[in-house]
Amino acid sequence: MTAQPATSIDPGARELVSGLAARARAAARELALLPRGRKDEALRTMADALVAATDRIVEANTIDVERESAAGTRANLLDRLTLTEARVAAAAQGLRDVAGLPDPVGDVVRGSTTPTGLQVRQVRVPMGVVGMIYEARPNVTVDAAGLALKSGNAAILRGGSAAEHTNRVLVEILRETLRTLGLNPDAVQLLDAPGHDAVRALMTARGEVDLLIPRGGAGLIQTVVTESTVPTIETGVGNCHVYVDAGADLAMAERITLNSKTHRTSVCNSAESLLVHEAVADQALPRILRSLGQEGVVIHADPALKDVTEQAGARWVEATDEDWAVEYLSLDMAVRVVPSLEEAIEHVRRWSSGHTDAIVTDDRSAARRFVDEVDSAAVMVNASTRFTDGAELGFGAEIGISTQKLHARGPMALEELTSTKWVVEGDGQVRV
Amino acid sequence: MTAQPATSIDPGARELVSGLAARARAAARELALLPRGRKDEALRTMADALVAATDRIVEANTIDVERESAAGTRANLLDRLTLTEARVAAAAQGLRDVAGLPDPVGDVVRGSTTPTGLQVRQVRVPMGVVGMIYEARPNVTVDAAGLALKSGNAAILRGGSAAEHTNRVLVEILRETLRTLGLNPDAVQLLDAPGHDAVRALMTARGEVDLLIPRGGAGLIQTVVTESTVPTIETGVGNCHVYVDAGADLAMAERITLNSKTHRTSVCNSAESLLVHEAVADQALPRILRSLGQEGVVIHADPALKDVTEQAGARWVEATDEDWAVEYLSLDMAVRVVPSLEEAIEHVRRWSSGHTDAIVTDDRSAARRFVDEVDSAAVMVNASTRFTDGAELGFGAEIGISTQKLHARGPMALEELTSTKWVVEGDGQVRV
Repeated sequence: MTAQPATSIDPGARELVSGLAARARAAARELALLPRGRKDEALRTMADALVAATDRIVEANTIDVERESAAGTRANLLDRLTLTEARVAAAAQGLRDVAGLPDPVGDVVRGSTTPTGLQVRQVRVPMGVVGMIYEARPNVTVDAAGLALKSGNAAILRGGSAAEHTNRVLVEILRETLRTLGLNPDAVQLLDAPGHDAVRALMTARGEVDLLIPRGGAGLIQTVVTESTVPTIETGVGNCHVYVDAGADLAMAERITLNSKTHRTSVCNSAESLLVHEAVADQALPRILRSLGQEGVVIHADPALKDVTEQAGARWVEATDEDWAVEYLSLDMAVRVVPSLEEAIEHVRRWSSGHTDAIVTDDRSAARRFVDEVDSAAVMVNASTRFTDGAELGFGAEIGISTQKLHARGPMALEELTSTKWVVEGDGQVRV
Repeated sequence: MTAQPATSIDPGARELVSGLAARARAAARELALLPRGRKDEALRTMADALVAATDRIVEANTIDVERESAAGTRANLLDRLTLTEARVAAAAQGLRDVAGLPDPVGDVVRGSTTPTGLQVRQVRVPMGVVGMIYEARPNVTVDAAGLALKSGNAAILRGGSAAEHTNRVLVEILRETLRTLGLNPDAVQLLDAPGHDAVRALMTARGEVDLLIPRGGAGLIQTVVTESTVPTIETGVGNCHVYVDAGADLAMAERITLNSKTHRTSVCNSAESLLVHEAVADQALPRILRSLGQEGVVIHADPALKDVTEQAGARWVEATDEDWAVEYLSLDMAVRVVPSLEEAIEHVRRWSSGHTDAIVTDDRSAARRFVDEVDSAAVMVNASTRFTDGAELGFGAEIGISTQKLHARGPMALEELTSTKWVVEGDGQVRV
């Protein structure tokens, strides 16, 4: 998708989005006033309804999976697309979990009484209308709808076209549940139109949509954040580093590197690069590379590391600058020996995507410098990069991981789907 | 300025901005680690330096004012451009006030220890490189530099060209001070190049600039928020309402309306529209319109209000829909009688710019409904709209008033110029 002037968007697509957004705005107004009990009841009823409709959901999903399979879609994408009975149950459980979380709406963030007696408070309120643009992962449809509902927002969902039948059925079930409970079904809507014009209309619906969250690969995210005129949050690209400091416990370094790289390679918080301080390289590299090699990780490194890599039983490929920048999302890892902590920090500051970077060390001052000087959403000391995750950090849910600095940074959950409002109560004060 | 593809930006302008941004990034890295004492010392030394250089500043300002005056610039714009000895002293005092405010950097926003023993904390950190685009108001140059410095950010300032000589001298003095104190002068830089390409290069320096804040008229702000690929915060357009409810104390209603409209007409938190509940219109309108008329306010209203307006000694002009939408910034006010609280809320939801809206009432449930259902950055009960102001609400300083919902809403001060970072400390934890 290349940038085009907004005026060239198909008027039909623009009208479709404006209609969705207007209905979402009306629903959002009702949602904003809904007490927690009604929202939680809706989430639990939705969960039950999804489980009850498992056959219908799996049937629709089979149509999507078979069409994509016949079209030669890669196995890992097909896997993300596929819903089974267990996965429907897991999505339903996700909704129940969200029902159990505190409601952020109405929280008083801060407040004071001014010298002239004005009672001032900053209160958390819903964003309003939240758009989600994501790839063909039907569980995101349920997750996003649930998090939006709990935080009092109306959701406009645009999932990948490969999941169109599945998403249609899922959203129908969620909307039916809302209707049954006497709630406005337009709290959850699907932007169900083929082609890029619908997406572009959503991205440029400034004033109609309050927030747009892209979730998916780097290309999707770049398109959304650069072309949108609606406020967006950049999510998820992760070129994460593990730095093994001179002061590292090497067994811990081995364990953390292995977990960060191989626990789940396809996700944004897995590590892509390993930096090792030269003072411990001779001891650390053989054991770490052996562990990585046993898991099938291909090592991208300078020629100087060819021998040690191959002696450790791992495959070596010569690294280029591209390797320092790339998010492999696969069993590949860029490895570099650095002469100092400073050089490690410089490397991370230059190449990191600002998602998660970890240091392994028992040296307090090294840890502090790394934490202070690495400018990323999450900085780990003696822990796997895989912990940058809403559930792991105790938020109970996650709608994405922000790699931007505005509004939200790191895992985003319910609070990050809200804004605030200043309420000022006086007894006739005027400015003098 | 119309939207053009980023590729058509003059390469010289892009290179200039990239150079500024790279130097700002290096300075921001140093600033982020600077303890509060050094920052406050710099702010106080800057204040002294500005006062000491008053003659030099006023001299440069005179060149700008005389040129603009000869070009026929309007009196109110000339007034905003003009610096006197007293105004230089006020700007310096502003820096001293900022030095006295708490440092937001390093604040722990929240934290916890996870079940597996990870110690998690969310720490406030500077944004990094902050760009400001504003009109020909030289005091903004000093304010913005001071707030950015205190919050650990490097500032790239782009003031209106009408203030070019003044801004050049001001920024020179601030940079000289930083250099004298052994700090990186690139913490404060001026984007000093004529023409729109420099601005467009700044707006599209995604990844080089972390945040862009426009401050000025509606046209400037719209250009920046719709054309930028750098994250921006929309500020300041205020079509603010005062609603006089059926339950209002009419003396209070008169006082608050008058203050909201006439205390300072040229600012965003002054009121532009007055809504009066029909149950009290006969009592409220004559006295409120008389007060407004005495201050020279022109009333824009339906023909049904012509007689009461003129009998109260005010000038009446027939209102069109345009009047409900416009930010007059002048001695004009749109006035409407509404049949109910609900209609008042509908009117505000439809026409308000989402800045500040006020209700005057002694009726608790009316106040609560108004507060809950009006979707604006600030909602006032029995207080003037003029209180939506960082200093009035106790923030001590203000870089603008956000009318968007993302990141910051309402008056923005030091905290709103920061982001956060997650710091996770473990003792070898990996994910299972």
